[in-house]
Amino acid sequence: MSNTQRFHSVAALLLALLCGAADADPLESWDDGAAKKAIVAFVEKTTDKTSPDFVPLEERIATFDQDGTLWVEQPMYVQVMYCIDRVPALVKARPSLAADEPYKTVMSGGRAAGLKLREYDLIKIMESTLTGMSTDAFRADVAKWIAQAKNSSWKRPFTDLTYAPMQEVLKYLRENGYRTYIVTGGGQDFVRAYSQQTYGIPPEQVVGTAAGTTFGYDKNGKAFLTKEPRLLLNDDNAGKPEGIHLVIGQRPHIAFGNSIGDQQMLEYTTAGGGVRLALLVLHDDARREYAYGPAQGLPDTKVGTLSQALYDEAIKKGWILISMQNDWKRVFGFE
Amino acid sequence: MSNTQRFHSVAALLLALLCGAADADPLESWDDGAAKKAIVAFVEKTTDKTSPDFVPLEERIATFDQDGTLWVEQPMYVQVMYCIDRVPALVKARPSLAADEPYKTVMSGGRAAGLKLREYDLIKIMESTLTGMSTDAFRADVAKWIAQAKNSSWKRPFTDLTYAPMQEVLKYLRENGYRTYIVTGGGQDFVRAYSQQTYGIPPEQVVGTAAGTTFGYDKNGKAFLTKEPRLLLNDDNAGKPEGIHLVIGQRPHIAFGNSIGDQQMLEYTTAGGGVRLALLVLHDDARREYAYGPAQGLPDTKVGTLSQALYDEAIKKGWILISMQNDWKRVFGFE
Repeated sequence: MSNTQRFHSVAALLLALLCGAADADPLESWDDGAAKKAIVAFVEKTTDKTSPDFVPLEERIATFDQDGTLWVEQPMYVQVMYCIDRVPALVKARPSLAADEPYKTVMSGGRAAGLKLREYDLIKIMESTLTGMSTDAFRADVAKWIAQAKNSSWKRPFTDLTYAPMQEVLKYLRENGYRTYIVTGGGQDFVRAYSQQTYGIPPEQVVGTAAGTTFGYDKNGKAFLTKEPRLLLNDDNAGKPEGIHLVIGQRPHIAFGNSIGDQQMLEYTTAGGGVRLALLVLHDDARREYAYGPAQGLPDTKVGTLSQALYDEAIKKGWILISMQNDWKRVFGFE
Repeated sequence: MSNTQRFHSVAALLLALLCGAADADPLESWDDGAAKKAIVAFVEKTTDKTSPDFVPLEERIATFDQDGTLWVEQPMYVQVMYCIDRVPALVKARPSLAADEPYKTVMSGGRAAGLKLREYDLIKIMESTLTGMSTDAFRADVAKWIAQAKNSSWKRPFTDLTYAPMQEVLKYLRENGYRTYIVTGGGQDFVRAYSQQTYGIPPEQVVGTAAGTTFGYDKNGKAFLTKEPRLLLNDDNAGKPEGIHLVIGQRPHIAFGNSIGDQQMLEYTTAGGGVRLALLVLHDDARREYAYGPAQGLPDTKVGTLSQALYDEAIKKGWILISMQNDWKRVFGFE
């Protein structure tokens, strides 16, 4: 860097720091309740060098479940929609599948029919649409799909359906030196295809259910990897802390979830020394999003179950409950 | 941040940028040869926004093999020394092992005897000393060991035996927005225990041979993970690109290795689009470090073999050969 460049860098930083939204509220979509206060207090305590709870920069790890915590998970996980939508391309490449179930049902009834399939059939579709191609081709295909696909209930792109208050938390934590990770039961390769543009989270900060790959060479002798149907990590329930250890290798200081699949991640986080914070998003807002549970007597659904037992554990252990209805001034960026 | 704090931050940055070692050579331990020129040209091209080879910040990934690339790997990999040194503690905890081989040999002959064991016996020792404990206990034990253990040939702490020119490259790349990763055939958990203080590389930027863990609760109900003898990733040869995909999820733009275990990582790196750089460290300096190969007719050793075939591939593909003898003004920081 020349001295002139250096001068310009300093000038730019000076402008950003002094004239930028100096005292704007980084969590402006949050009501000034207990949840917001807990998040702000956590950040202030762990980033103040004079605090006994100070956390060195290299240990500032924050983890977030995705489905139901960062974006809408109803009526079904986004990845399942992708797999169903991909069936026509799969059948085109392997025409013999057209006569076989469950492909036949999806070919005639589309996504709506696919969503009614039994779990066994969905798994069959997922395995065949998520493996066998190169990692590069898969990522490009997911990126292309997510750029135009819509949630059928909301008639909006899936990427519009992230929660504005959670996007603020991601940004706020990053501005305070935290590396923000997604730790999802969904496919690691799937989420990595859109995490940067959707959440500002690079591929290496996504931990998810992961299958093995096989190294090989294409016809021009170029090295590439093929996605295989060989499970390495089932990143849900106890698999979440195991995945955190495998990919991150450090215990998070703060973790966010919304369902029983996040229980062990929150337990693992809070079992570390010093200040640790666990938070659960409650879907208790039937007007603006959904109300499902079944904690608090809300209906159970196919996805994102928050059991009464986990709810009780959260209360007992002082985890922070985030009520969509009461803690969020707005749910989505488009509101 | 208050405006006063902000002013102090800006003042500190200004001082650092303007008065710091402004035009100091970031690669001062390197001779001004082809290797250094290639590294500098790569960084300048990929970080200049006006260059057709510009790489966005979020894609700047650099990977480094450890043993023989970042530090000395003779007379044996450091991790193997750890496992042998740990035998007495293991036998103390499980006294019945004292009468069994290979433990008996190590108990009477120490590290020197351990290093003469057959590979089969070493693997037995590694499995028993690297699994069965909590991930926290293991990390603490490695950190304690590495703080005092020495390389018997060099009579120095292992952490003194990192290559000064490579430490400079790590720092130089980081200062230019690259995330520097270790991608090692060694144990991921092992290297993560000392990577931060030894290389400035945090645990999550170490990819290595990884075994599974199991989630559980201790007697106080606290969540923890136990290290299991269940291999998830053999991070050597083809396992290196597979490990890079698993943990990083992006193809590196620059990669450094020194042996046949690094071949596929270098091939995978250079098969990406745009400017990519692959580099091989040659151990051709018998005076200051070692000379082994067997490329260039140097003797083969137990570890870190650079085959003639890989050497030829490097020449053919225009990879950069780093000659310790000719490219490095000094090898170690203590010189």
